[in-house]
Amino acid sequence: MAMPSSRYALGMTELAITFDDVLSAAERLKGVAHRTPVLTSRHLDERTGARVFFKAEHLQRSGAFKFRGAYSTLSRLTPEQRQRGVVGFSSGNHAQAVALAAQLLDMPSVLVMPRDAPAAKLAATRGYQGRRPGSEVVLYDRLTEDRAALCARIAAERGATVVPPYDHPDVMAGQGTAALELIEQAGPLDALLVCVGGGGLISGCAVAATHLLPGIAVHGVEPEAGNDTQQSLAAGRLVSIAVPQTIADGAQTTSSGALTFPVIQRLVRSIVTVTDAQLVATMRTLAGRMKQVVEPTGCLAAAALLEGVLDLRGARVGVVLSGGNVDLARLAQFFAD
Amino acid sequence: MAMPSSRYALGMTELAITFDDVLSAAERLKGVAHRTPVLTSRHLDERTGARVFFKAEHLQRSGAFKFRGAYSTLSRLTPEQRQRGVVGFSSGNHAQAVALAAQLLDMPSVLVMPRDAPAAKLAATRGYQGRRPGSEVVLYDRLTEDRAALCARIAAERGATVVPPYDHPDVMAGQGTAALELIEQAGPLDALLVCVGGGGLISGCAVAATHLLPGIAVHGVEPEAGNDTQQSLAAGRLVSIAVPQTIADGAQTTSSGALTFPVIQRLVRSIVTVTDAQLVATMRTLAGRMKQVVEPTGCLAAAALLEGVLDLRGARVGVVLSGGNVDLARLAQFFAD
Repeated sequence: MAMPSSRYALGMTELAITFDDVLSAAERLKGVAHRTPVLTSRHLDERTGARVFFKAEHLQRSGAFKFRGAYSTLSRLTPEQRQRGVVGFSSGNHAQAVALAAQLLDMPSVLVMPRDAPAAKLAATRGYQGRRPGSEVVLYDRLTEDRAALCARIAAERGATVVPPYDHPDVMAGQGTAALELIEQAGPLDALLVCVGGGGLISGCAVAATHLLPGIAVHGVEPEAGNDTQQSLAAGRLVSIAVPQTIADGAQTTSSGALTFPVIQRLVRSIVTVTDAQLVATMRTLAGRMKQVVEPTGCLAAAALLEGVLDLRGARVGVVLSGGNVDLARLAQFFAD
Repeated sequence: MAMPSSRYALGMTELAITFDDVLSAAERLKGVAHRTPVLTSRHLDERTGARVFFKAEHLQRSGAFKFRGAYSTLSRLTPEQRQRGVVGFSSGNHAQAVALAAQLLDMPSVLVMPRDAPAAKLAATRGYQGRRPGSEVVLYDRLTEDRAALCARIAAERGATVVPPYDHPDVMAGQGTAALELIEQAGPLDALLVCVGGGGLISGCAVAATHLLPGIAVHGVEPEAGNDTQQSLAAGRLVSIAVPQTIADGAQTTSSGALTFPVIQRLVRSIVTVTDAQLVATMRTLAGRMKQVVEPTGCLAAAALLEGVLDLRGARVGVVLSGGNVDLARLAQFFAD
């Protein structure tokens, strides 16, 4: 007698991606994305009482995990779509990732970025675009212009494809390859800590990790000021907050996504938060002890463990260091006594 | 008819170490020293026109290549010598390396350090010593006390073995394992760039590299203010200079050694110099582009290539990043605009 699968028996809705989607993304990224190293530190193992495996996505191309999602999404576009190019919006790592992925795949890209974005990020994005005809950075005014409307207009004018920063199945599956690789490199893990902005990284990673290791506890980490996902989990529905004030600029999202949130609800064990002071302490620890430059958002997951928010004594713990793009002048402020 | 080997036919004197000594050191370091990763950067390859392989010794145990020489030297001591322990002098990375190696080999260590050494370095050295009876840091006054005499007295009192920072065959052979590994990891190289303080690292590396790759050009890099080895090569004999004023505190040596200099004379193609400003620019490049914290001395070799002192367009180039121990407050000064 055929039994219905438990998923349908329980009336669960389908999630936006499956483990096979992550595997397909990994196939598309092979030889293009870096298989970033896994870093360890005896000192930090002693301090936490855990065995910690840091997945070094700050050493990924474009300086953040975002390249995985951007490239794996763009590489699925049809020849016609490629010709018309892509439009992305972001003041940070997603812009650089889309610019680089588009350049590698030989298609034009338009990145819509705030006029007051750091000069270094504007320059890096333009640098990745190269001098390709049709590629450009379009600046907008945060206070007087509607970014979404601007993107939609550009996309309509060009027939270009909009690449959202997190709420897209291909983006989510691409980000999940970070966890897939980490588990291949480090072996079985008891827990996996991942930062949460819009939820693209953690949803992809949770799908990959819980498929490979059904007993693993996936924990998300948000900035204290921007705990929209924690609130959403408590409420059982998507909660939106005002733009949070935090140094974790990559996690200044006002809510997770319609596609990412159901994955978080189903597969993530808990969401914890860390303060900006804990992020600064973690940046200092990672620079001083591990000689690594990790941006504030990239320190979220590590901070939860190193600053004692989560006690995972005796466990094998994966921690994603998600990015390293931070201005040196800003770094100088964090490192000054 | 048996021919004399060319070395003797040419009347050359024996060098202090051979390639076999480096191999033996590698054997002793196996499973103890980190096999540090080799880092690469598309951006820096484009900028230099070379294919660059950075040997990440700033990720070595104790934060610098010095652990290789210290451990491989201490591990050859007899049980009786181990019981009496070791004495080392250094204000920097050699002290931390000896302290850690002694602790791992279960022997007491005395480190003679200047009273005005950075608090972080004193704390790190004491931290590596642990609470072992007989292990201590002895402070001296740079202006009024004779460090060599103090070391000799402590060694005589305890029957302890003095571990010099560079002019010792076991130390030199241990440091040479960095080049051995780099060539195993990166494959054939046309050139190898190594910083020069007392010459321990470059002499060991030159022996290993020229044995494995007879055509390789080994270049040494000194701070402009401390070009004693460059002067010595020009003079054909060891030249001593006053303590040089440079931010490369690990290369503030006044001359290379009686054992290291002959190796440099025979096996090193050239010595070039870089300014402090070029070191700061390189620290910024390595942090901004490669997300790595490298101390000023650790940037010497990289600076020669990245700042255009050496033009190695088209070549496969190994660059040793020799250490990463720098106070965050100091780093903040270098990173501030």
